[in-house]
Amino acid sequence: MLTIDLNSDLGESFGAWRMGDDAAMLDIVSSANVACGFHAGDPAGILKTLRVARERGVVIGAHVGYRDLAGFGRRNMDPSSEELIADVIYQIGALKGLATAAGTRVAYVKPHGALYNTISFDERQAADVIAAILGVDPSLVLVALAGSPLIEQARASGLAVVAEAFADRAYTADGKLVSRRQPGAVLHDPEMVAGRMLRLVTDGVVESIDGKMADIDAQTICVHGDSPDAVAIARRLRSLLEENGLTIRPFAARV
Amino acid sequence: MLTIDLNSDLGESFGAWRMGDDAAMLDIVSSANVACGFHAGDPAGILKTLRVARERGVVIGAHVGYRDLAGFGRRNMDPSSEELIADVIYQIGALKGLATAAGTRVAYVKPHGALYNTISFDERQAADVIAAILGVDPSLVLVALAGSPLIEQARASGLAVVAEAFADRAYTADGKLVSRRQPGAVLHDPEMVAGRMLRLVTDGVVESIDGKMADIDAQTICVHGDSPDAVAIARRLRSLLEENGLTIRPFAARV
Amino acid sequence: MLTIDLNSDLGESFGAWRMGDDAAMLDIVSSANVACGFHAGDPAGILKTLRVARERGVVIGAHVGYRDLAGFGRRNMDPSSEELIADVIYQIGALKGLATAAGTRVAYVKPHGALYNTISFDERQAADVIAAILGVDPSLVLVALAGSPLIEQARASGLAVVAEAFADRAYTADGKLVSRRQPGAVLHDPEMVAGRMLRLVTDGVVESIDGKMADIDAQTICVHGDSPDAVAIARRLRSLLEENGLTIRPFAARV
Amino acid sequence: MLTIDLNSDLGESFGAWRMGDDAAMLDIVSSANVACGFHAGDPAGILKTLRVARERGVVIGAHVGYRDLAGFGRRNMDPSSEELIADVIYQIGALKGLATAAGTRVAYVKPHGALYNTISFDERQAADVIAAILGVDPSLVLVALAGSPLIEQARASGLAVVAEAFADRAYTADGKLVSRRQPGAVLHDPEMVAGRMLRLVTDGVVESIDGKMADIDAQTICVHGDSPDAVAIARRLRSLLEENGLTIRPFAARV
Repeated sequence: MLTIDLNSDLGESFGAWRMGDDAAMLDIVSSANVACGFHAGDPAGILKTLRVARERGVVIGAHVGYRDLAGFGRRNMDPSSEELIADVIYQIGALKGLATAAGTRVAYVKPHGALYNTISFDERQAADVIAAILGVDPSLVLVALAGSPLIEQARASGLAVVAEAFADRAYTADGKLVSRRQPGAVLHDPEMVAGRMLRLVTDGVVESIDGKMADIDAQTICVHGDSPDAVAIARRLRSLLEENGLTIRPFAARV
Repeated sequence: MLTIDLNSDLGESFGAWRMGDDAAMLDIVSSANVACGFHAGDPAGILKTLRVARERGVVIGAHVGYRDLAGFGRRNMDPSSEELIADVIYQIGALKGLATAAGTRVAYVKPHGALYNTISFDERQAADVIAAILGVDPSLVLVALAGSPLIEQARASGLAVVAEAFADRAYTADGKLVSRRQPGAVLHDPEMVAGRMLRLVTDGVVESIDGKMADIDAQTICVHGDSPDAVAIARRLRSLLEENGLTIRPFAARV
Repeated sequence: MLTIDLNSDLGESFGAWRMGDDAAMLDIVSSANVACGFHAGDPAGILKTLRVARERGVVIGAHVGYRDLAGFGRRNMDPSSEELIADVIYQIGALKGLATAAGTRVAYVKPHGALYNTISFDERQAADVIAAILGVDPSLVLVALAGSPLIEQARASGLAVVAEAFADRAYTADGKLVSRRQPGAVLHDPEMVAGRMLRLVTDGVVESIDGKMADIDAQTICVHGDSPDAVAIARRLRSLLEENGLTIRPFAARV
Repeated sequence: MLTIDLNSDLGESFGAWRMGDDAAMLDIVSSANVACGFHAGDPAGILKTLRVARERGVVIGAHVGYRDLAGFGRRNMDPSSEELIADVIYQIGALKGLATAAGTRVAYVKPHGALYNTISFDERQAADVIAAILGVDPSLVLVALAGSPLIEQARASGLAVVAEAFADRAYTADGKLVSRRQPGAVLHDPEMVAGRMLRLVTDGVVESIDGKMADIDAQTICVHGDSPDAVAIARRLRSLLEENGLTIRPFAARV
């Protein structure tokens, strides 16, 4: 039986501000990357999302980010190793606490935004995130960009790693993400997105922006839920995968 | 053998700003109330304090506070129950994460500043803090103001509670703290402070501001370390207690 | 010619989080209470709102609040006078700077949320807000709750004051707002809201929650814009007033 | 009569956390770079520093920084132009408001920390800071690193610019600052620092780290006040300059 994991960034509301439709997405995904308060997420909102995730059997990951609420963790920063290691531990610990209170647990770590992008290629900050995870809970799995050097670096350090593809992003012929600044980098058509990901799961390839076949080895697919369109894309993706006999299943064990 | 615990608020630096002399205080106290980031404490600084505490065998408590960095958690606030419960869980969880990374663990919770004062007498916010502790880790001990209704409320909810006295504060005849707004509320003389606390530990009484004997049943004494004078008072207190055959020992088990 | 001012809380997005439909509301209201960054509003978002307000000839007020982003300024706090005065000056100054850059200016101050409610009746915090306004720009008008003691206090201190009614709120027979915790406190029917406010403007009365006529002396009416329903109510209110020959006009002079 | 300006970073306390000895430094310097709340400085503390500055006739500059309290504005960030422009306007406006309330005014802008370093050489962020100043108050003078391309860029945009040297920093032979990461980058000997700056003012040269003479054209000298040693260096510098007939005078007009 062929299985795949679908993950999404959730718990990203903050105080009076709503973001995304967590309840809808928790019916679609098998893994939830839950904000930890540094780029988004207030404790009460996070706790609500965790409770719904537990009810639906969705596995929880810590969506750790830079300390940058105003920039939603999307701006590059250069914290020292001392700062970055402790910031990541703090966030994972906070989410573990809330997960315990919600009757679930944190199973993996997926860094957010600028931190995700940076550690895909920056060895120093990658080492800091790895050290943080090893320090607080070495059983946590790291979700890393498929094809990035981070995967080997984390495995060599003793972490379990799962590679990730992005459903709504264009790829280059050598399997890298097309930069968001380029036209065509983000895909909007639900059928096309679903079809591409079906092929990724079954054949391990995705058609690149210049029409070649790119090899992508991914065990989880990120879908977005921050707009009604995004939810629709995610829903269509899940249906098409299931129609083709695939099982949507978390890469990490359920609680 | 008569024993007593000495506790102090530590880990209260933030980024470039220093507060207190944690290294000095960790030689004096047996329990460290470590800031959790909401009223004070950045993760890297907290982690450093936790490491030194572990080296010295000092037991760790979560010094949770209101989300008010600019006011150092000293301003009254009225978060909803949903907010307060989740905020307290978040802070405890974050400190647990950092404690794990430092090779130690969190053994108790002592709320900070305005939250401490409020829950001593406000049943609703007290219930929220109690619910938070029960939700994240019911083995955590709650440190509560000696003589406050919180003690019974927490015990009735199933929490272990330890009552606290303040070394440098004046008391009324019925064992309540004299308000800081009144003259004479804060004591500055090391000998006098030490002598009062020796009597508290041996006889269970302290001389009140109007010269009567107030009964105080406390298992831990709070000493401050935020100025050279405060460190000197704490040091003198410890010496006097030891000179009189008392053992300074944490109320909670060491790691 | 009978005129009335309509005001609304705008500029309340923060970073990646949207709140309200500022562009729609700026077609409806004559005065915009613009967030200043303490309860909501990031500088770039505020600046955008100010530019649209200038284009549409909408007058700008500083919507100052407590320093409580996570609580959206809706939680009671007790800053010291020193803190509150300086916090209010800081916010007004920041908005003045952005208004200058947007080619407009700040004409009035309307406190937000818990601060608004508190100073309506708390003389000490009211005095702090008044002192702040007098310190930074005594030509600023203060918008205050109709019927509140704040009005006299501010006038006695030398400030110009404009009294405010709330379009979607129920009133008691003596002209006070019905607490949000009571059923029926918030009105949702556009026709009813519009009809009530028409009567308020023309006759100076509003029907109270228990069916009596309450006298309300208000020169500005607050309308909300934080949901599509709220925008629809505001739009209907404006139409009905105009259909009845009233002119919607800012209480303060345009730039 | 030969004159020179001495400037220092002040107002950098935050809430309960103290930093530097503003009162001492305001007796030494002629210009005060006052924090604006993004990297440091709470409104009440800023207001106090502004009042003392006014009493002593010290001229005020806006010490604007990145929005990074935890990193004290010392970490590189890449805000968008839209964000950076608005963030700088907001900070200048806030300080202008507080300065008005303190009976003084803001005369110049000196960016702080990572923002200062970045705009010395990064044309895009420099353009953003320049646009912000032009947008809020084009009469403000920009303090820029002596020898940096920022000086020409700002002048070409129509800003008045003053070039700055650092009293306690080593220079390379071509007049650049030696990186703090290199040994010998920061000078600690008061006599040596004072002697070097006397020569800078009188001859326009400073001895470089490799013993050559570097030309430095500076109209203001930055002295630090964040430690007793730093205050002592600043005091000695001022005395030596005065003993040699120089007048310490702000580059910008007093209020």
